[in-house]
Amino acid sequence: MKNRVINPNVSVDCVVFGFDTQSLKVLLIEQKAVEGMSGHQALPGDLVLNDESLDDAAARVLKELTGIEGIFLRQFHAFGDPNRVKQVQDLDWLKSYRDQPEARVITIGYYALVKMDEFQTEASSFAERVFWQDIHEIPELAFDHNSIMQRALDRLREEFENRQVGFELLPEKFTLSQLQSLYEAIEDRELDKRNFRKKVLKEKLVTALDEKQTGVVHKPARLYKLNLEVRSKSPVHGSFVTVKF
Amino acid sequence: MKNRVINPNVSVDCVVFGFDTQSLKVLLIEQKAVEGMSGHQALPGDLVLNDESLDDAAARVLKELTGIEGIFLRQFHAFGDPNRVKQVQDLDWLKSYRDQPEARVITIGYYALVKMDEFQTEASSFAERVFWQDIHEIPELAFDHNSIMQRALDRLREEFENRQVGFELLPEKFTLSQLQSLYEAIEDRELDKRNFRKKVLKEKLVTALDEKQTGVVHKPARLYKLNLEVRSKSPVHGSFVTVKF
Repeated sequence: MKNRVINPNVSVDCVVFGFDTQSLKVLLIEQKAVEGMSGHQALPGDLVLNDESLDDAAARVLKELTGIEGIFLRQFHAFGDPNRVKQVQDLDWLKSYRDQPEARVITIGYYALVKMDEFQTEASSFAERVFWQDIHEIPELAFDHNSIMQRALDRLREEFENRQVGFELLPEKFTLSQLQSLYEAIEDRELDKRNFRKKVLKEKLVTALDEKQTGVVHKPARLYKLNLEVRSKSPVHGSFVTVKF
Repeated sequence: MKNRVINPNVSVDCVVFGFDTQSLKVLLIEQKAVEGMSGHQALPGDLVLNDESLDDAAARVLKELTGIEGIFLRQFHAFGDPNRVKQVQDLDWLKSYRDQPEARVITIGYYALVKMDEFQTEASSFAERVFWQDIHEIPELAFDHNSIMQRALDRLREEFENRQVGFELLPEKFTLSQLQSLYEAIEDRELDKRNFRKKVLKEKLVTALDEKQTGVVHKPARLYKLNLEVRSKSPVHGSFVTVKF
């Protein structure tokens, strides 16, 4: 890249959640190995350029590292522990990739929700590999990325509860089992199948379609879509009503 | 101050909301005049020190400029427009107070809710004056502080609606008129007195005390306190149930 003036003190990190109709995943990269040491796993993130906005930086960095673009990234928190990039195990990587490896870096966290099967990933820049990892099996990540990822998950749970953010993760047409899996994945608890179905239908959260699953070996289930007319009266959000179980 | 290493690229700005049982105010400073030009009005904010966390920076800066300390500041958004401190009218001030007046500054916004009468303000550092301003009468502020203040207000309204954040603004014992004023101030609309009272009592949001106002010229009104047992079942928030009007 030509003439990029990089701000040494501010970065962005992206927590991209995906759902494969079964469980919740997060997009990780494996850093390229440096000086004979294998690279760490990390959230996609990097320093911002001096002339770009934070939102633009998040979109650019995600694209450069993972090939993913065109998704809606929401800023959720700034992380500013003075020692957040000072751990010994991150030093070699910082020395290889940063002009000022000792600089304090404050990072702005972004999160996004995507339908996993709509995106092809392609590792580039300092990412050796890009992969989806189940949120229950997150390895030790570089820097403070484990806490950034946890905080994003907390935010997703809050937004799901208060504003029903999260339905972006569903396919347009879905089965009630898939809807239940979404609730279970985000809320991280098991729900009773019978009660779940009863309540979803009673609250008119979904509308039954005159269609069934295709291409499944077992008995095909009925498909549903979200009932977009079921919204709260909130002038601020215009969000779905909250259906709690 | 001795040996303070200042990060040229990152600042904090504080939006402190107060309520005088009538209307919602925000805490502003007037910058000290520089080079014969009168200082602008602004949110209390400044660059972070290189060895302090963002939360610590917000508390320190608020105390240095306004004398207020010991309040709960919540981070709410990072503002990173590359040109946010490049306006011509802010240049003289930046040249007088910053070592790198041309540096790009990303600011982390904090907001707080305080009972106005519990805090004495005292201007110092580059603040000439500290004052509470009605949110409907905010003047043109330095930098992008008008949009930071507006975004904090939006956040307060969201949090009030979803989690009943905002009751911190009430005195411990209050009249139903004062409670209605709080709702009206935050939601920025008038509510019907009779419906308001009916709903508040029906939802058991408050408990009537066997006490009345003292020191008022008109007929003293009954005092109430928040009914802390009325909480949502939310495991995430533990917040008050939302009572909507």
